[in-house]
Amino acid sequence: MKKAIAELIGTFILVFIGTATAVLGGGIDGIGIAGIALAFGLTIVAAAYSIGTVSGAHLNPAVSVAMWLNKRITLTELAYYVVSQVIGAILASFTLRFLLTDAKLPVDNLGQNGLGELSVVGALTVEIILTFIFVLVIMTVTSASKGNSKLAGLVIGLTLTMVHFVGIPLTGMSANPARSIGPALFVGGDALNQLWVFIVAPIVGGLLAAVVAKALLNTEE
Amino acid sequence: MKKAIAELIGTFILVFIGTATAVLGGGIDGIGIAGIALAFGLTIVAAAYSIGTVSGAHLNPAVSVAMWLNKRITLTELAYYVVSQVIGAILASFTLRFLLTDAKLPVDNLGQNGLGELSVVGALTVEIILTFIFVLVIMTVTSASKGNSKLAGLVIGLTLTMVHFVGIPLTGMSANPARSIGPALFVGGDALNQLWVFIVAPIVGGLLAAVVAKALLNTEE
Amino acid sequence: MKKAIAELIGTFILVFIGTATAVLGGGIDGIGIAGIALAFGLTIVAAAYSIGTVSGAHLNPAVSVAMWLNKRITLTELAYYVVSQVIGAILASFTLRFLLTDAKLPVDNLGQNGLGELSVVGALTVEIILTFIFVLVIMTVTSASKGNSKLAGLVIGLTLTMVHFVGIPLTGMSANPARSIGPALFVGGDALNQLWVFIVAPIVGGLLAAVVAKALLNTEE
Amino acid sequence: MKKAIAELIGTFILVFIGTATAVLGGGIDGIGIAGIALAFGLTIVAAAYSIGTVSGAHLNPAVSVAMWLNKRITLTELAYYVVSQVIGAILASFTLRFLLTDAKLPVDNLGQNGLGELSVVGALTVEIILTFIFVLVIMTVTSASKGNSKLAGLVIGLTLTMVHFVGIPLTGMSANPARSIGPALFVGGDALNQLWVFIVAPIVGGLLAAVVAKALLNTEE
Repeated sequence: MKKAIAELIGTFILVFIGTATAVLGGGIDGIGIAGIALAFGLTIVAAAYSIGTVSGAHLNPAVSVAMWLNKRITLTELAYYVVSQVIGAILASFTLRFLLTDAKLPVDNLGQNGLGELSVVGALTVEIILTFIFVLVIMTVTSASKGNSKLAGLVIGLTLTMVHFVGIPLTGMSANPARSIGPALFVGGDALNQLWVFIVAPIVGGLLAAVVAKALLNTEE
Repeated sequence: MKKAIAELIGTFILVFIGTATAVLGGGIDGIGIAGIALAFGLTIVAAAYSIGTVSGAHLNPAVSVAMWLNKRITLTELAYYVVSQVIGAILASFTLRFLLTDAKLPVDNLGQNGLGELSVVGALTVEIILTFIFVLVIMTVTSASKGNSKLAGLVIGLTLTMVHFVGIPLTGMSANPARSIGPALFVGGDALNQLWVFIVAPIVGGLLAAVVAKALLNTEE
Repeated sequence: MKKAIAELIGTFILVFIGTATAVLGGGIDGIGIAGIALAFGLTIVAAAYSIGTVSGAHLNPAVSVAMWLNKRITLTELAYYVVSQVIGAILASFTLRFLLTDAKLPVDNLGQNGLGELSVVGALTVEIILTFIFVLVIMTVTSASKGNSKLAGLVIGLTLTMVHFVGIPLTGMSANPARSIGPALFVGGDALNQLWVFIVAPIVGGLLAAVVAKALLNTEE
Repeated sequence: MKKAIAELIGTFILVFIGTATAVLGGGIDGIGIAGIALAFGLTIVAAAYSIGTVSGAHLNPAVSVAMWLNKRITLTELAYYVVSQVIGAILASFTLRFLLTDAKLPVDNLGQNGLGELSVVGALTVEIILTFIFVLVIMTVTSASKGNSKLAGLVIGLTLTMVHFVGIPLTGMSANPARSIGPALFVGGDALNQLWVFIVAPIVGGLLAAVVAKALLNTEE
């Protein structure tokens, strides 16, 4: 139960800070790609070294499903983690919406993901590749045999920043179903219609990463 | 006494570098949110690995009060720390004001905090949430049982940067009563009238973080 | 063979993320030098702590040739590494081209290197100096006697970011033949005609660094 | 002798990368304060983990003089270090000038320091305070008893970045006589007339830091 609460808080931090930075900072035309990318990445640093000491700070169903595939968590834990992550993300979008309303700002942009100019195939490709890279790093750096536990939070955070550099101008960058569900529920429209892309692609990318990590990098030995 | 001097120097560094970057760099329209956020965050890195070896580098009454609640410092130490922090912050704003005068620049902006477009409730919400996240990380990463003493300064600094991404466009980001008191004393007006928000909210957020860190993350075992 | 696949994946990450950031972010006039520099640097962090556990994450023929000169890898390994790196880079440029086409964006800019306003001598000078610095850091921080294995990936990544600050406005920054070959093959024209500069200079810089690392810094003891 | 060569190379890296970033990136109006600040800071990271394994990577007469005051190097070593640092800086400015000429760019801006809008007292104040902070961190983090040798290069680099946030818009930020001498010799004029400020102030700030580090932070025990 502590793990579930920890994941909820951690995912709240990720989604709230990340999407609020994008929205309040004015997006690509304001704070810019590097700023938003850094904000998302630093949430991992903060969460990893705080609530991560209890739950491991997955903060992301795509990560938890990869952990489950490689037998690092049980199916029951996976369920708890994913539910907590989604609740945390929804609370984050709710809080952002409240603050925007309070500041008399528009609430149709909560940092939702979308296809942008890409086709569905293009968006799936981007999200699968970038989630694959992100989760591959996670599976290795948190591996008992291959990992670097002290630096893991920092390395994973910087990797999340890195994939955002490419993902933000294309899809807004998900790599995390919970991060996409939160804003989509409040914004609706395209964000909700296209939500499946940002649930399917990260999970596929995460599962691929788990397989490659185990087979190529021997992370589960 | 050495601890008090160390906290004074450290808080001077935090407030001087942070607010001077915001003011001299042209604020959000100049150096931007990411630059200011990074400046504040790096002050923690610098202070933690220097004066932090003597005092722990709280640099912030909201941190010290959380440390006190979880019995890491005594009430007497808390008093010394807070007084030193406030003096350091005032010296920082005084120095910034001197340099601005010397460079014939306006002195009505010393990087003070304010409600901006938010209501009092909105500002309290932002500051409580962001201080909670910030102090939660501090309490964990400096915990004897759960912490990571070598990386603590780096992690805390990056977390302070992170919360600034969201806080700067809303309240200018305090999360630190001393950091708000320094500029407010010299600028007066709204900064002084609204100062209580930036004293109350960080302390509430810090105390909440201390409770959650202890209960959920077992930081005091 | 695992090492070869690892190098292929790692170099794909470096070239895809780095060049896609430059192209999709709008280059120097958009995301800017610092953003692109950070993107390239973070690819090293991600690769070092993931596929680096198998292959060492050279991701760069100039690095591999320096490692070979100082007898850290054999000539056969050098051949495998270089071929894998070039294939990874070509796949990266192919993927970027696919995504640009999918998003109906121009494909004449894939982040290729070029002389810019410099003469051949100027470009050679820049690339030799910057590759020398980059590889000197690599040879030291990965040295058995002088190194810092836990932090190596982070330090090397930040160093790659650093040299990009100077190299981007001049040549687009290569310091890595594979990184230049990928885009040049698809873009052709000047990028292909000038490609030799970005093969020769990084290799010369890398070899010089290997010699200085060994003689001055005793990295091979 | 190896130490002298190492300091020469290291100071070349610092001054070349730092000033070239400022000049080629378009200064405050181009790459901006944060970019330039990051470039300077990262030179320390690169130098510390490479040539620093031989010489300690002072790269700065203000640092060497503080090290000498606290008896970490001898007077003879101080002389060697300072001479090497100044030569390295001059070579850096010479190389930057060559590249600018090659690219047909103006050579009257080599990243020199100057009073800007400040009075002499104002500039001395800024440089003394910022050098004090910078060297205080160095003396602590490299201290045998209080230090953190693995992270030292990273912490010092981030601290140099930090002080640049405030120093760049005021004096261009020196905190390092060698860094100011290099450009001033080639640019002449005000840079040369005001050079004494950027020799005296950093040395005063460095000496003060050495005294405080020893007395307050017990760095020499």
